[in-house]
Amino acid sequence: MEISAIYHRPDSEMAYLVNEDLFQIRLKTKHNDLKKVELLYGDPYGTKVNEKDQSEWAHDVLAMERKFQSEYHDYWIANIKVPTNRLQYAFHLVGNDDSEYLYDDRKVVKYTDEAIQKLTCFRMPYLHQIDRIKTPDWVKKTVWYQIFPERFANGDPQNDPQGTLPWGSVAPTRENFFGGDLRGITQKLDYLKDLGINGIYLCPIFTASSNHKYDTIDYFNIDPSFGTKEDFKELVDQAHARGMRIMLDAVFNHMGDFSMQWQDVVKNGKKSRFANWFHIKKFPVSYKKTTNNEFATDITYEVFANTPHMPKINTANPEVIDYLLNIATYWIKQFDIDAWRLDVANEIDHHFWQKFYQATHAIKPDFYVVGEVWHSAQEWVGHDEFDAAMNYPYTESLIQGTVSQEITLKEMVSMLNEQLMLYRDQTNQVMLNSLDTHDTVRLLRLCKENKDLARQALVLMFLQPGSPCIYYGTEVGMTGGFDPDNRRCMIWDSTKQDHKMFQFVQKLIAFRKENAQLLSKGEIQWRKVDDVHKVVEIERRINKQKVKAIFNFGQDKITVDEDVLPAIEQNFENGNLQSQGMVIYQE
Amino acid sequence: MEISAIYHRPDSEMAYLVNEDLFQIRLKTKHNDLKKVELLYGDPYGTKVNEKDQSEWAHDVLAMERKFQSEYHDYWIANIKVPTNRLQYAFHLVGNDDSEYLYDDRKVVKYTDEAIQKLTCFRMPYLHQIDRIKTPDWVKKTVWYQIFPERFANGDPQNDPQGTLPWGSVAPTRENFFGGDLRGITQKLDYLKDLGINGIYLCPIFTASSNHKYDTIDYFNIDPSFGTKEDFKELVDQAHARGMRIMLDAVFNHMGDFSMQWQDVVKNGKKSRFANWFHIKKFPVSYKKTTNNEFATDITYEVFANTPHMPKINTANPEVIDYLLNIATYWIKQFDIDAWRLDVANEIDHHFWQKFYQATHAIKPDFYVVGEVWHSAQEWVGHDEFDAAMNYPYTESLIQGTVSQEITLKEMVSMLNEQLMLYRDQTNQVMLNSLDTHDTVRLLRLCKENKDLARQALVLMFLQPGSPCIYYGTEVGMTGGFDPDNRRCMIWDSTKQDHKMFQFVQKLIAFRKENAQLLSKGEIQWRKVDDVHKVVEIERRINKQKVKAIFNFGQDKITVDEDVLPAIEQNFENGNLQSQGMVIYQE
Repeated sequence: MEISAIYHRPDSEMAYLVNEDLFQIRLKTKHNDLKKVELLYGDPYGTKVNEKDQSEWAHDVLAMERKFQSEYHDYWIANIKVPTNRLQYAFHLVGNDDSEYLYDDRKVVKYTDEAIQKLTCFRMPYLHQIDRIKTPDWVKKTVWYQIFPERFANGDPQNDPQGTLPWGSVAPTRENFFGGDLRGITQKLDYLKDLGINGIYLCPIFTASSNHKYDTIDYFNIDPSFGTKEDFKELVDQAHARGMRIMLDAVFNHMGDFSMQWQDVVKNGKKSRFANWFHIKKFPVSYKKTTNNEFATDITYEVFANTPHMPKINTANPEVIDYLLNIATYWIKQFDIDAWRLDVANEIDHHFWQKFYQATHAIKPDFYVVGEVWHSAQEWVGHDEFDAAMNYPYTESLIQGTVSQEITLKEMVSMLNEQLMLYRDQTNQVMLNSLDTHDTVRLLRLCKENKDLARQALVLMFLQPGSPCIYYGTEVGMTGGFDPDNRRCMIWDSTKQDHKMFQFVQKLIAFRKENAQLLSKGEIQWRKVDDVHKVVEIERRINKQKVKAIFNFGQDKITVDEDVLPAIEQNFENGNLQSQGMVIYQE
Repeated sequence: MEISAIYHRPDSEMAYLVNEDLFQIRLKTKHNDLKKVELLYGDPYGTKVNEKDQSEWAHDVLAMERKFQSEYHDYWIANIKVPTNRLQYAFHLVGNDDSEYLYDDRKVVKYTDEAIQKLTCFRMPYLHQIDRIKTPDWVKKTVWYQIFPERFANGDPQNDPQGTLPWGSVAPTRENFFGGDLRGITQKLDYLKDLGINGIYLCPIFTASSNHKYDTIDYFNIDPSFGTKEDFKELVDQAHARGMRIMLDAVFNHMGDFSMQWQDVVKNGKKSRFANWFHIKKFPVSYKKTTNNEFATDITYEVFANTPHMPKINTANPEVIDYLLNIATYWIKQFDIDAWRLDVANEIDHHFWQKFYQATHAIKPDFYVVGEVWHSAQEWVGHDEFDAAMNYPYTESLIQGTVSQEITLKEMVSMLNEQLMLYRDQTNQVMLNSLDTHDTVRLLRLCKENKDLARQALVLMFLQPGSPCIYYGTEVGMTGGFDPDNRRCMIWDSTKQDHKMFQFVQKLIAFRKENAQLLSKGEIQWRKVDDVHKVVEIERRINKQKVKAIFNFGQDKITVDEDVLPAIEQNFENGNLQSQGMVIYQE
């Protein structure tokens, strides 16, 4: 047995309350190295009298299940009830080589009766509900639609900024404007309702100078070219009336350099009362320009990336904390928003995010907080900071395995399983799954404009745990490369919309919502991962409900033998799944 | 290479700020499996132009050092500076079999130039000082002395409880009293000053009915049989005047059943305004007695262990939180105590301890909080809850390897190294190291009354990172078995005190304090671990300062070849280290 690979971490995503009643324990071992793992568990203060009339620890024994496998690891899982709330446990490991060991909080030793008496168990001393990670249930039933407001719909030409170009008349640049606004979104709510989505994620809408609005000038105002607070209130109310939630984008890592606070620093230097609101190394603040507007050198203050126009905010300053939390709660209390997406959230300190979580959830207990984190996010989702992260590592793996085929399907499944094991189940269920966003190349472009492939990727993503999110326009066949090309104007001309794509996406959203419980919380199993024919088969299962899907990413036709009618299908006929075909069966 | 064993966790004890300037990264691999590990690291936004005129990630490469080894693992460590505070990194692994891999946030792949271009690095997006785990510097220079107040010294016979027995006249029981009190301690401060200790850890002193006072009745009062608040103020002031810190014991997991709050629940049941202060399953509260006073069955409320006399406190109730934090701060603000030791701290929720940490440190930024945790404590010391835990897993391993010899010296070193790798360096430096306490058999009894062996164990413990703590009376040769025998009256009769032991402990304390920086923060290396002769050699080193110690736990004489004069020695002459001998050299 490869003992060096055995790993468990108490009081983490490997040992946690899944819900009020169930405690989950995970164990990592080397891939295909053990044939059995038993969990020995019980109350640390529980005793019984044994056959030799001695008092010993009263414990239960439960076989753990090998639920996830990756290239190098197996993950064994047990869900147990802990009626006294007090728990200690150890693992009984049985190798394929028949060796047997005990693994506890201090050591791995040969399995013997004597060794059981000498266990120094892992401890979860008391399972507190207040320490349980809770995630909002509604998110598990939500399909999101991400809108880049400047490019979605122009509902009020009166507020168009100077130099606004006719809708979609030219390619988007980093500087140009097309007049998209909040009223435009409100006017299209019935369109979105028809599409079926029930959550809208809006990129920033507060006063800012750029078209993307990530350079906030005033967090307490709607950008004038997007409309007014009345317009926003109308949007939220109308969305809520249609059963749709609203998520706004908070840019708290940095401000725009046109903000009142930064301008005061520029003007008054060290004497500015905002001097401690930023991370300034030398006054007066300065930098050297380059040909790239977003890249400067010799910047005397900390910034986002290398752009002098986004000075980094000092979130350890109590005045700043107060200011930012006021913003966070203002838009909830006054406008009833349901979620915050947090821009560059990973570069802000944990102390701030804990306060942010408390402040927002004190108003709405089922508020949803999603951090922009492109890498492993255990520390952010493990301690009441974010409910979830943007799940790029997961969706990128999906794309690499199926769309770009940079990695094999086996590698893809391995990476997906490792990702799922980074987080608690309830976290995985609310991770925000986007195949593309305003920050990435559009899905259809990744698919080299192959719409069948794009649909396959969408379906595969919708079958994963996590809350699926569609980037605006995907449903009518929009494409686009890197920023700013991924921010083209939404196509409203019916003759230019892809109606087949719309109907497919509409059907997929309906399917996801109908099977929300299953697709969010159900077990996930990859039944077939065939890199020769590029075929994968995935199954989701909860109680007696089951969904099975087969995808053909290869060139050859494959035959499927199933006598249930397909729920969703593509390139599929008479049991034959053509290249770029997919079929979902439902029981 | 055994890839399944490779492990790293960002934003944890494996990736953290050691101090304001240094960031430490640890990597775990299989024991003796790799010959080299390089860290590739740099600012995620840093780019440079490469030979092919392409822009690529600008990063540094640093060889990591294999600093700790255990039976199954090697730990590789690098300390780096991060001038921009932004960091991403990956590992270049070279196996003994010459295979080379890259390990990043998502995968392990073959090491190639192309693979370096495709890294998805581990990220520490921004190193925030506010998130850095800080531990009090004074603790690193402190040698603690633990006092069980009822048994240390009777300074005021006026406050003796009814039925107080003559000092040391009979063996201690769970019920008897000998009159120890606070004035007794104050009167003995010069004795303690002479011994050399500079921290006093007092078991509970608040009003309670038992002799151990862990069943608190009133947290805002000194137990009348221990004296008054004036007595306590005098004790703290006199101790401070002698350069000694004071640590009190807070029992917040449960109250005594004679407390006003619990009595109100007993009397008024569901209608008591304290009904939500506890975890009550059924009113009226009740239990079935057994012959053991501390063990009942059918208890209708949650308790500590199985005793009906210690109802568990509901620390999620805001009223209770307020009450307990008032206690915590009262004794700091009014009496200037320096530290809290937290009883059964592991059974209280993390949310409470975070608030506790904030409240206490807001008054004294260098306040010290030690939780009673007998098992791995990563979650409690990783997030501003406790500065340290009582280090039982570490000191028990020391005892098992040297005193009881239940495990080999190799196993001992392996366990110690694994323990050190559970925590950040700054945490290890303030862990509370006790070879015995009021909860364990006394050291001398563990040594079967062999004082040479006890001295060896003490010296070995004093040479470890962590703040050493002596249980009262150890210095005069006191012994005792399990509770209550480990709580005998302090021996003050000079003719019954072991003066050789006193002088030895005095010398050891002085040595520890003189070398505080080295023994707290210095590197630790086990130079020799010889299970045939039962000999270990340990070295501590910082800058150019070095301490080396050799211990002979075996039967055979061994010869030591060193031309420096020993700093401390036992059973050592002319280079010959006898059985149960030890020698410390200092450079």
